[in-house]
Parts: sequence; C-alpha cells; structure tokens
Amino acid sequence: MEGWSGQAETSGPRDEGSLGDGPLVACSFIPPLELDCIDGGGNYDVVNNVVIPTPGLQNHRTQNASFRHSWEMNYQEAAIYLQEGENNDKFFTHPRNPKALAAYLFAHNHLFYMMELVTGLLLMVLSLCEAPAVPSLRLDVYVHATLELLALVMVAFELCMKLRWLGFDTFLRHKRTMVKTCVLLLQFVEAIVVLVRQTNLRQIFQSLPPFIDILLLLLFFMVIFAILGFCLFSPNTSDPYFSTLENSMVSLFVLLTTANFPDVMMPAYSRNRWSCVFFIVYLSIELYFVMNLLLAVVFDTFNGVEKMKFKSLLLHKRSAIDHAFQLLVSRQRPMGVSLKQFDGLMRFYRPRMSARDRYLTYKTLNTSGTPMLSLQDFYTLYEVIGLKWKARRSGEHWFDDMPHTTFLIFKGINLLVKSKAFQYTMYVVVAVNGIWILVETYMLTSGFSWSRFVPWSYIVFLTIYGVEVLLKVTGLGPMAYISSGWNLFDFSVTLFAFLGLIALAFDMEPFYFIVVLRPLQLLRLFKIKQRYRNVLDTMFELFPRMASLGLTLIIFYYSFAIVGMEFFADVIFPNCCNTSTVADSYRQINVTIGNRTVLEEGYYYLNNFNNILSSFVTLFELTVVNNWYITMEGVTSMTTHWSRLYFMTFYIVTMVVMTIIVAFILDAFVFRMNYSRKNREPLENPEEENGIVFEVEVSRDEALATLDLYKQTCPRLSSLSSLQGVLQAMDRGGHTSLVYQGRRSRTKSDLSIKMYAEEIQEWYAEFSRENLPETDQTSERALDSPVSDPPPPYPQPQGISTA
Amino acid sequence: MEGWSGQAETSGPRDEGSLGDGPLVACSFIPPLELDCIDGGGNYDVVNNVVIPTPGLQNHRTQNASFRHSWEMNYQEAAIYLQEGENNDKFFTHPRNPKALAAYLFAHNHLFYMMELVTGLLLMVLSLCEAPAVPSLRLDVYVHATLELLALVMVAFELCMKLRWLGFDTFLRHKRTMVKTCVLLLQFVEAIVVLVRQTNLRQIFQSLPPFIDILLLLLFFMVIFAILGFCLFSPNTSDPYFSTLENSMVSLFVLLTTANFPDVMMPAYSRNRWSCVFFIVYLSIELYFVMNLLLAVVFDTFNGVEKMKFKSLLLHKRSAIDHAFQLLVSRQRPMGVSLKQFDGLMRFYRPRMSARDRYLTYKTLNTSGTPMLSLQDFYTLYEVIGLKWKARRSGEHWFDDMPHTTFLIFKGINLLVKSKAFQYTMYVVVAVNGIWILVETYMLTSGFSWSRFVPWSYIVFLTIYGVEVLLKVTGLGPMAYISSGWNLFDFSVTLFAFLGLIALAFDMEPFYFIVVLRPLQLLRLFKIKQRYRNVLDTMFELFPRMASLGLTLIIFYYSFAIVGMEFFADVIFPNCCNTSTVADSYRQINVTIGNRTVLEEGYYYLNNFNNILSSFVTLFELTVVNNWYITMEGVTSMTTHWSRLYFMTFYIVTMVVMTIIVAFILDAFVFRMNYSRKNREPLENPEEENGIVFEVEVSRDEALATLDLYKQTCPRLSSLSSLQGVLQAMDRGGHTSLVYQGRRSRTKSDLSIKMYAEEIQEWYAEFSRENLPETDQTSERALDSPVSDPPPPYPQPQGISTA
Repeated sequence: MEGWSGQAETSGPRDEGSLGDGPLVACSFIPPLELDCIDGGGNYDVVNNVVIPTPGLQNHRTQNASFRHSWEMNYQEAAIYLQEGENNDKFFTHPRNPKALAAYLFAHNHLFYMMELVTGLLLMVLSLCEAPAVPSLRLDVYVHATLELLALVMVAFELCMKLRWLGFDTFLRHKRTMVKTCVLLLQFVEAIVVLVRQTNLRQIFQSLPPFIDILLLLLFFMVIFAILGFCLFSPNTSDPYFSTLENSMVSLFVLLTTANFPDVMMPAYSRNRWSCVFFIVYLSIELYFVMNLLLAVVFDTFNGVEKMKFKSLLLHKRSAIDHAFQLLVSRQRPMGVSLKQFDGLMRFYRPRMSARDRYLTYKTLNTSGTPMLSLQDFYTLYEVIGLKWKARRSGEHWFDDMPHTTFLIFKGINLLVKSKAFQYTMYVVVAVNGIWILVETYMLTSGFSWSRFVPWSYIVFLTIYGVEVLLKVTGLGPMAYISSGWNLFDFSVTLFAFLGLIALAFDMEPFYFIVVLRPLQLLRLFKIKQRYRNVLDTMFELFPRMASLGLTLIIFYYSFAIVGMEFFADVIFPNCCNTSTVADSYRQINVTIGNRTVLEEGYYYLNNFNNILSSFVTLFELTVVNNWYITMEGVTSMTTHWSRLYFMTFYIVTMVVMTIIVAFILDAFVFRMNYSRKNREPLENPEEENGIVFEVEVSRDEALATLDLYKQTCPRLSSLSSLQGVLQAMDRGGHTSLVYQGRRSRTKSDLSIKMYAEEIQEWYAEFSRENLPETDQTSERALDSPVSDPPPPYPQPQGISTA
Repeated sequence: MEGWSGQAETSGPRDEGSLGDGPLVACSFIPPLELDCIDGGGNYDVVNNVVIPTPGLQNHRTQNASFRHSWEMNYQEAAIYLQEGENNDKFFTHPRNPKALAAYLFAHNHLFYMMELVTGLLLMVLSLCEAPAVPSLRLDVYVHATLELLALVMVAFELCMKLRWLGFDTFLRHKRTMVKTCVLLLQFVEAIVVLVRQTNLRQIFQSLPPFIDILLLLLFFMVIFAILGFCLFSPNTSDPYFSTLENSMVSLFVLLTTANFPDVMMPAYSRNRWSCVFFIVYLSIELYFVMNLLLAVVFDTFNGVEKMKFKSLLLHKRSAIDHAFQLLVSRQRPMGVSLKQFDGLMRFYRPRMSARDRYLTYKTLNTSGTPMLSLQDFYTLYEVIGLKWKARRSGEHWFDDMPHTTFLIFKGINLLVKSKAFQYTMYVVVAVNGIWILVETYMLTSGFSWSRFVPWSYIVFLTIYGVEVLLKVTGLGPMAYISSGWNLFDFSVTLFAFLGLIALAFDMEPFYFIVVLRPLQLLRLFKIKQRYRNVLDTMFELFPRMASLGLTLIIFYYSFAIVGMEFFADVIFPNCCNTSTVADSYRQINVTIGNRTVLEEGYYYLNNFNNILSSFVTLFELTVVNNWYITMEGVTSMTTHWSRLYFMTFYIVTMVVMTIIVAFILDAFVFRMNYSRKNREPLENPEEENGIVFEVEVSRDEALATLDLYKQTCPRLSSLSSLQGVLQAMDRGGHTSLVYQGRRSRTKSDLSIKMYAEEIQEWYAEFSRENLPETDQTSERALDSPVSDPPPPYPQPQGISTA
C-alpha cells in the first residue's frame, strides 16, 4: 500500500508526460476519424452500458495526440475483450474495423437487446389475437397483419446490424446468426429463437443423447409388454384395453404415466386375480426402475454439462483478460498495468462507474503490493468488477446524527426491534393469527358473502403488523430495513392485507382476492428454523435460473399450442366423443339412474385447443399427466388415430423438461448442501453472510495523489467530484484514512469456484500449457516491434495506429 | 519370495518346536475343558461356517500341550474377532467365557439364522390363513393357533440362546435383543423385527428428520391453500371439492398426488377461467418445487448416511484386524504373524478352506516380502479372504487335452463362436425374430385360441437359438459358458421357449404363459450398446440391495394390510358407497342413457381389504397413487371420516420409501458413473473386468517347504492333499512354478474404497490418533508381561491360559 502511493506520486503521473511509453500492443481496428484525439471525460455519450465517442470540446495536446489516441483505442478494445469474456462471445466475432465497431457497440446495447426481446414477445402475443383468438382480444386481420409485418421488419433490421458488425464470412461462421437468417422465413420459429438465447435450451439438448438411449429402453419394454398383454388379455372380450395390439400399446404407454391405473387392470383382474402380477411387474420395471434411471442419467449428464459450461466460461474469461492485459501494458513496463491505464479501460468498460470506485477497484485488485497490477492481479477482475462500494460507517445507526433525545428514542426502538423477545412475540402473534384464521374459516358456513365479511380480528392483526413495520423501519432505518429480503416480504404481505382492507371498506369487488392472501403471513414462521431459511434462500437463488427454464417451458408450450390450435381447434365440445371410451367425461345430459334423474356434467370439453389460453391450460393438464388420456382419447375420437402422436410427443418432451427441472433443483440443493459441508461454513445467518465483501483502506495521502493524477489526465472529468467526496468525508470525520467496503451478492459462479478449486488449478495449468507457445511468441514479437499484432488465434489487425 | 521360502525352511518349522514362543496376548476366555489339547485337523465338527471342537483322537505332546493349546484358543478368538468385524457386531458382545462362546457359536450359525427367518416368515404367512383369510387357504383355528404357538416357542428359544451368550447385563445394552424381548409379547411385531435385521430400515429412519421438516413445509402450504381455496371457491355451490374446509384440505391433499387433477379444477374453471391460476400455482409450488426438495433432502441425507455406514464398517473391520493381530503375534516376534499362526487362525475362521488356499491367501497378503505378515499386510485381509483360487491354465481351452482331430473341430467352433460375425448374425436373427413377432401379433384377430397357435416361425427361431446354445457350450466349454451372466440369460430364455413348445405340443394349458415369454429374447439386443450393458450390470449389482429395500416395503405393506383388514374387511362391495362422490366407480347396474340400456360396471369393489392378498393389491394401487382417492372415498363413505387418516398415512409412508428407492437407484448410478469417470476406466468389457483378480506364483521349493511345515504341525490333516495336488500339477506339467489366480466379484465396498481413497486415509489417521495411546499402552504392557490383557476398551480377560 505504502509502496504504491509513493509510486503513484513519483512515477505514475510523471510517466504520463514522458513521450514514447505507448501501448505495447496496438488496438486492432483502424482509428476512426471521429475518434481522433478524444481526451478524458465529458466527450462521450453514454448509451446504457456503452461509450459512444462524440466530437466535443477537445483538448489538443498536439505533441502526443496520436500517442494518447492510441491509448484510448486500446482502452476501448480491452473493454470490448472483457465484455466478450463476460458474455461468452467467441473472439472470432471481435470487431475488426471502425464500421464493425460501431455496429458491435450498437448490437451490444441494452436497447438493442430490449428491441429483440420485444419483437419476439410481440410475435408471440400476436397469437392471442390471430385466427383462433381469445374472444375478447380478437383483432381485425389488417391490424394484426400490420403488427406482424412491423415485427418482421424489426427482425430484418436487427439482422442487418449484425451483418454489418460481423462481415459476411464471419456471419456464416457465427451459428446463432445463421440460424436467425434461416428463421426469418418462418416467423414464429424466429420468435422462439430470439427467446431461446435467454434459455437453457442448449443444455437441454446436450443432455439428450443418453436420455434417448434410456427412452428407447423404456419403449422397448413397453412393446414387449404390449405383445405379452395382447396375448394374455385379448381373449377377454370385456377388456377394451388390450383388444388390439394398438390398444395394448396405447394402454401401456398411458400406464407408464399411471394415468389409467388401476382401471386398465380391472377387467383382467376381475377375470383372474393373478393377472395383477403382469401390471405389478410392468410398473415395477418401467415406472420404478427405468424412469428413475432416466432421472439418474439426466441428472448426471446435466451435472457434467453444467461443469463443462462453467469451465469453458471460466477459461474464456481468463483468455479475455489476457487479451485486455496485452492491450493495456506499456512498452516500458510490459509486466504491469498502471492506475492510469486501468482507469482508461474502466472508463470504457464501466462508463457509469465513478472515479472513486474505479480507484477502489484498482486497489482491491492490487494484492501484490507492487505499484502495478500484475497479470495475476488482473485475473481476479471479474470477481471484483461488480462490487458496490460504500464507506464503512463509523456509527452503526442511521439516526446517529440526530439530537440526543431523538437519538435515545430511536436507540430504544432499535434495541426493542432487535431483541429476541420482540421477534418471538411476533412469531407468536403470527401463529395465533394463523390458528385464528383456521378456526374462523372452519366455523364459516359455505356460501358466505364477501362484503359482510370484515371480521374484527382482521383489523386487530393488521394493526399489529402495521405497528411492527413502522417500528422496524424507524428502528433499523429504511435502507437497512429493505436490504433484508425477509423484511421486504413482511412489508409486502402487510401492504397487501392493508389494500385488501381498503378494497373491503370501499366495496371494490374485483379486489377481494387480496383479502384471501392473509394466510401468507404464516410464511413468516419459517424464519424460525435454519433448514427452512436455507430452503427459501436456495429458492430465491434458484429463481433467476428457474426463470430461464420456465421460459424454455413456455416456448415448448407455445409451439405445441400453435400446432394444437392448428389441428384441434373446435373439435371438442359438450357431448362430443360418443364413440370413445371416455365419452362420460364429455357428457352433459340428464341421466336416469334407477328412478332418479340427474344432470351428469363431464367438464372435459373445457380442455380444448380453441384459443391460445385454453391451449396453455390444456397443456398444463397434460403436463400434470393425471387423466391426460381423457383429453387424448377425446381428441382422437373426433379426429384420427394419428392425433395420439401429438399427445405422446408432448408427454415425452415435457418429461424431458420436467426431469431436467427436477435435476436442476436437485443439483442446486445438493450442491448447496455439499458446499456448506465442504467449507464447514454453517450458513447460520444467511441474511448477513449471503454476499461477498472486500475491504480497502484509503489514506489521505493516497487520495490526494490519486486526485492529482486524475486532475492531470482529465481535469474536467465530472467524476472527480467523487474523489473529492472521499477527501471531504475524511475532513468531516477527522480521520486520516477511510475504509471502504465493496459488496455484491454471491453467485453460483463463486460457489463453483470454491467447489472445484482443485480442478480449476488443473484447468488453468492445462489452458496455459496449450496457449504457452502462442503467448510466448506474442511477447517476443511485442518486444521486437512495439506495435505488434494481437495474439495470433484471433483476427489480424487491419492497420497500425501510430499513423 | 526367495527370502520367505528360505525363512520357511530355516526358522518357520524350527520355531514350532522351540519352547517359550507362546502368544504375545492370551485369549480372553477360560480354556474350556473339552478344548484341552486339541491338535491339528480332524478334531472339529464343522457346522456351516463355524468350528465346534469335539473330543477326538488326541496327539498329546505333553511337553508343550498347554502352550499349544493356548495358541489354539488364540486362533479361535482371533477368528471370532474377524467375524465380528465382518458382521459389524459391536465388541461388547464379544463372548467372555466358554458357555458364552458355545452360545455365540450357536447363535452365529447359518442354521440359526435360517431358523429365525423361517419363524418370522411362518408368522407372516399365517396371516394368509387366519380370520379374514384367502378363501382357498382357510385353516381351522386349531391348526393355525398351533402353528403360531410353535413359532412363538421358537422365538423364545432363540432369545434364550442369545441371553446365554451375552449375559444379562450386556443383554440390556444390546439394543437389538432388548427390542426383541419386548416384542415377544406382540407376535406380529416380532415377525417384522426379525425381518428388519435384513433391511435398510435403520438407514430409512436416519434420513427421516430432514424429511419431516420438508413434509411440514408441504403440509403448511397445503393448509394455506386450503383456506384460500375455501374462501375462493365455496360460494360456487356446484363445486363439491371446496364446499367445506375439510373437503378443501382433502381435495388439496389428493391434488398433491395429482390423482384428482384436473377434475378438482373443473367446476371452478367452468365458472371462471382465471381460477386455473390457483391450481397452477399450487401445483408448481407443491408438486414441482417442494416435492423435488423432498427428493433432494432425502437423496443428500441418504448419501451421507451411506458414507458414514461405510466409514464405520471400515474402521470396525480395521479394529477387528488389530485385535486379531494382537492375538496372533508371538512373544519373540511381536511385529509379525508367521504362516503357522495364520494357518491356525484360518482353520477357525474359514474351516472350509483348503490348506492350499490358506497358503495362497497368506502369500497374497504378504506383499512386503519379509517372512512375516506385518500389521499393514494383515489389514488387507478382508479384501483377500473371499478369493476363489484356481491355477492359471497354460492352455486356454477346455478341449486342449483332447485328440488332435477333435481338438481342431472344437477349435473351429471356438473361433466361430468368438467371431464378431457370429455375434452380429445372432443379433440380426433376434431382431428379425422381434419384428416377426410384432407383425404376427399385429395380424392376429383378437380372441384366438392358444392350442391352434403354434406358428412355424416359432419352431424355426427356437431351432436357431438351440443351435447357438449348443455351439457356444461346446466352443467355450460349459464352465466358461455359464460364468457369463449374459450367456445364462440366453440359455434360460431359450429353455423357457423350449418348455413353452413342449407345453403347446402336449396341450398343457396352464403353462401356455411360457409361450408369451418369447419376446424376452429381444432383450439380448441390449448387449450391443455400451450404455445398456452398464445399465443392466448396475441393475444386477443393485438387486441384492434392492431386495432388502423390497423386504422393507413388504413389511410396510404387511403392517398396513393387517391394520386395513382389521378395520376395512368386507366394507366394500358392488353398489356400495352410494353416498360418496365416487359412487360410479363401485356401481354395477343397468343404466339408461337416452334410449339405450348399458351395463355399467365400476370395478373398484375389487380393491378391498377382504384378505391379505387383496389388501396387498389394493395397497400397491395406493402406492401407484393414480385414482387412489376413489378407494379412500369409497372406504370413508362406508366407515368414518377417520379412515382417511389410514390412507393419508399410507401415502406419506410409501412416499418416504419410494423416495428412498429413487434416491437409492440415483445414488447407485451416479456413483457408478462418477467412479468410472474418476478412474478413467472405460468399463468397456464388463463381463471380463467385473471382478477382482490377484495372482500368486508358487515355486516347487516353496510348495515343498510348506508341505513339510504342515506335515510337522498337523500330519493327519486331510487338507494336506490339496498341497500335494499342487506338487502333482507341477510334476504333470513339468513346471518349476505355478501361477494361481484368485478371483472374486467386485462389491460396492471395493468401489467405495477407490472412490473415497483420500478420505479413507484421513479416517485411518484420525482413527489411529484416537486409539494410539491405548495401543501404545497395550504393547508396552505386553512387553512387560508376556500374557497381558487384550486392548482395554473391550472386555477384560477372565483368566490366564497358561494354567
């Protein structure tokens, strides 16, 4: 630390002025005209995450303008490498000329992503309004055709931008975009593929081959048993399930899902009691053995793919860092990156970051204590980059600065809120509330009316919860309060209950459903037990990844819904399917049993493919599997035998997806449990520990030196104020140094890094062995000619920047 | 090797005669009179696996009789220690006096185990004939009461034997036996406990606590949703599923099993389409999240318990070996066990083993090359003990000794059978046969008669298979043929098909079912693909362990069947349950629909608890879960609401057991896959590699020296002939040495040892650290007084054998 601050004063800023210490490696794209001589801050338009240089007030220092400019270009290219490492973009798509650069910047813009997503969603949502439409949303054909055209134009535009960035030959190599060109012709496939980018679809396909092997095993046994079953049971004429070989196969396929058990067994069983052996053996083999095998295989493959994905991303990031490092080191000191270069990089890579945070990130990376960042230091960049920096408060409470009396009151509330007694009192209140609700509901006769149902207990408990929220907010401070997920949950449940009360008071009928959310308060009880906290935390950790799986599922649903609507719209209606064995479920007539007349209503006609929403519900029912054959047989009886193919395919596809979801959840939990066991880390208080924290101490001298440096390089940079803020904070508190804490939440990647620590070392060793000759070559060449090529496997430079 | 054989001649046999080299540690039980001065072979009764010394021809060498005798006692005690290590019996049950020893030997006899098992099974089978009996098996009350009494007397006798062995105070400490005393009073619990010893029940109970936590989470969500559902749907009077809070809970419990989906949703869905959200959310949370969580928790706990079990058994075995080693070392050389002592141990520990095999085992253990077995050598005893020894044949084929012409013919067959072409031809034949059967069955009209159905294709294919079997048996030799599981499978399937043909030819109607086993031939196709071979091999490996889980399941079934028969026998009959919502499923009447009259038969009255077999089938249907609520509601409507408790409890119990079965299969497969990945061992040819092989070379000199040794120590031992056989084999072949191969199949324990190799070293280190002070103490004491106590934590010796 000491060494560094001294170094910063002596060599850092001095170096800056000295001529000739240009970058070791030159940027690979020709310097665009409009980028000429940009200098320091203020001259960039920041669109989302990306810097777009604009011509502006320029401080021409002509003596080293071209030199300075080459640095700027290097910063930008290094930033792009880092971004590519983060996004797992392959390096052959690296932009090679100014036009490509502009297109690259445009195509890696949040706005552009958003546009892609919106286009995809628009195309999907249009299906709500098209031909077999949801009645209330039906649109005129011109309207939805126009919208569709619009969406397609947008897709074409997006594609053009990518073409411009990649050039046509890379474009052919870049599979994802190739796929896109093809699907331009097929509009809904396009919609799917755009969404696919967000999903785990690739991972799912990678675990397919072993899955298919086991699936064949499953089907093979099914066929054998179908033949056996046909031979054994077809002589029994009262058994419709095995009357032909086809029926026998369909029955056993459905039995695989257990949906027709025990009905499928009953006719045979009533004839001969020993026939149950056939079914028991079949179910034991297929359902309890082969299906579990399927789970095991998917689970195993999934784990393997997960690890490989992690490995390749990790190595890709490392290689990106290598590239960026090469672009940042200077000719005089090829082994290290100085603060100035690092700052230059960060201005492009994280344009929103303040100068203070850039400096703090640099200090965090610099663990070796030398004045420069070594490559080893630089390798941890991705772990440090997401930190949110905050000065560690000397005072613990948000009300420390208040007058004494107020302070005492707040302090009292704070102590109260943090006491065990208060917490357990609240648990008791919640428990009492739960029992109350249960008893109250139990006492109700059915068919009560909502508007007369505002029990006093509701108001009492709501008041208690309201007071609790107020006490906590005042006691802990609003920021500390909302930083805990549990508090947020408490707050929103209480808010909902309050909204429910208002809805009741003002008689707003459509919002009554809020009232019934009251029992959710009971969820708070789960804070008591460690295991539940773990479970719920894992659940929250899982959500982002589950969301992407959910999206995959929706895409499957969507495709099947479209196909289903195409073939089966309006084939199902009350009293249809009278020729099938499941006619009862579709019947809606008066039936005479003995001497009574009853209205028999089979509701299954509601499970149809008449519009996209109904289709989704029907497909969900098929996913749950129970009684799915009723829908299948109903549709089959109204169309052809081949319809079964649709339903069976859907079953197999959802089985794959559901198995992967199971494998996913299993994996996440087993991983977490293993992890906490391996690290002997009890995860006792996940609310506090659930994050990565770095601490950096900044002394007054260091801060001043850095401020000087910044003033010299970019005096008008508005973010200078953040550094001045550091000095002001020191002055105010009278400290000579301040400690800053950088925090971020723990990601799966952090867990994986700890988990595979040993293997990672092997991977790195292997990786550097593979790349060693090349990097050696590079650095040798770099020493020969200061402005040499970037590392060989990646695109060759188009020009030299020292023009 | 050289060193050893020299040693054997010079010191081994010489030592024997020299006085004073008695055991370092004395046996812990008083020498029983009838064991006095036994010497060498021939004087033991071998009952199953245990040696019972009998007074017989005694060769009194009075000068060292007591000394020799003390060695014999030590051999026996060391053997008992090893047996305890193998069975995981705790050392505090170690027999401490001659009476206890006799009882111990008796209670650890295979006959005794068999008796226990038979008693348990008898008690269980009696339930077939008791009160609600299977009609054809009904017995007079006197008969089954007598049988029951008999079984109980046997239980009492078994218990007495154990009491005699353990002594009363140990008896109180020995939990398993304590439990037994209690259950003597409850006859069927007894039957269960006897069987329980064979099962994984303990493991299941150990994984219960976390399971229960998650179960509570599941039920908690269920209650919350029950309240919500009641509030939302009870105003709809046509919705029977949510009319009261109780109905609401039952409906959601059943929905948890998906058995009433989508029916439970339909009334609400037909009223308001958005009500499907309630059900989708409920199922997503409960079925797809919490249930998977349950699986993850059980899976994880199960894995942990599995590892701990392995660890404790491993350490227990090690400690048993320590004990045995202490008893075998002599005063002069306390660090090693000589062949003589080892042989003495083996005569007790494996009385059926021939002298040759004992010698080969010794040579296998002796890896250090020193004349004695060190403790390190001795530690591998359990891995080596199960080997089956065979001389490695110089000739490869069984027909090598035949005349030349015959040899050539057989050689030709051998080459043919081993050729790829032959194998693939057979695959093609099987495939053609499969397609043939499929097409043939498809062409059949239903209701064919068996006796007219002997197609010529059957005979053709059967002939081909028969010829294949013959060729393989002659080509490979009968022993090599049956040593492969796949060949056995081929053989038995062909045999079945042949029996089926005979049944058809001689018109034996009850055996027709054999004919329909023909498609099983198709299973042979699975040999082609590596993954399937793996799957099936794992399946075979799993069977023994699955069998014990299956037994657990049967015990659960049995208990529930007994309870079910007690409460629900004869409550279900056709046209019962008319007050319930599932009346249709029990109806058996004529119904008029429109103007047609149809016999509607609901077969569910067959799912009853009228006798033990019906109960088992009913319980299996409940296990499969689909439509289980029909049985539940039927029984409930005929009895009380509380009956639901029975069915719900059964559901939860089977869910636990089934989850564990899933975890079990998952575990076995994932373990196997990890293992083969970790060891880079392709498992390419599991038929050949699926075993552990040791090789030992025996030279002529060694064999002679060993024979001398044996002649000196026990000249009349009949097993001497096995050693003479070695020499004869050398003479016949004219070799100066012979190589012997010891083989055994690979167990889970071998896999685990490789898998946890690193951790095992830690465990051992930890284990010896814990036991170090004690063993040090022991060896010091041992040096002070040659006949000292055995290691402290175990029972103190009752006397000294040098009397």
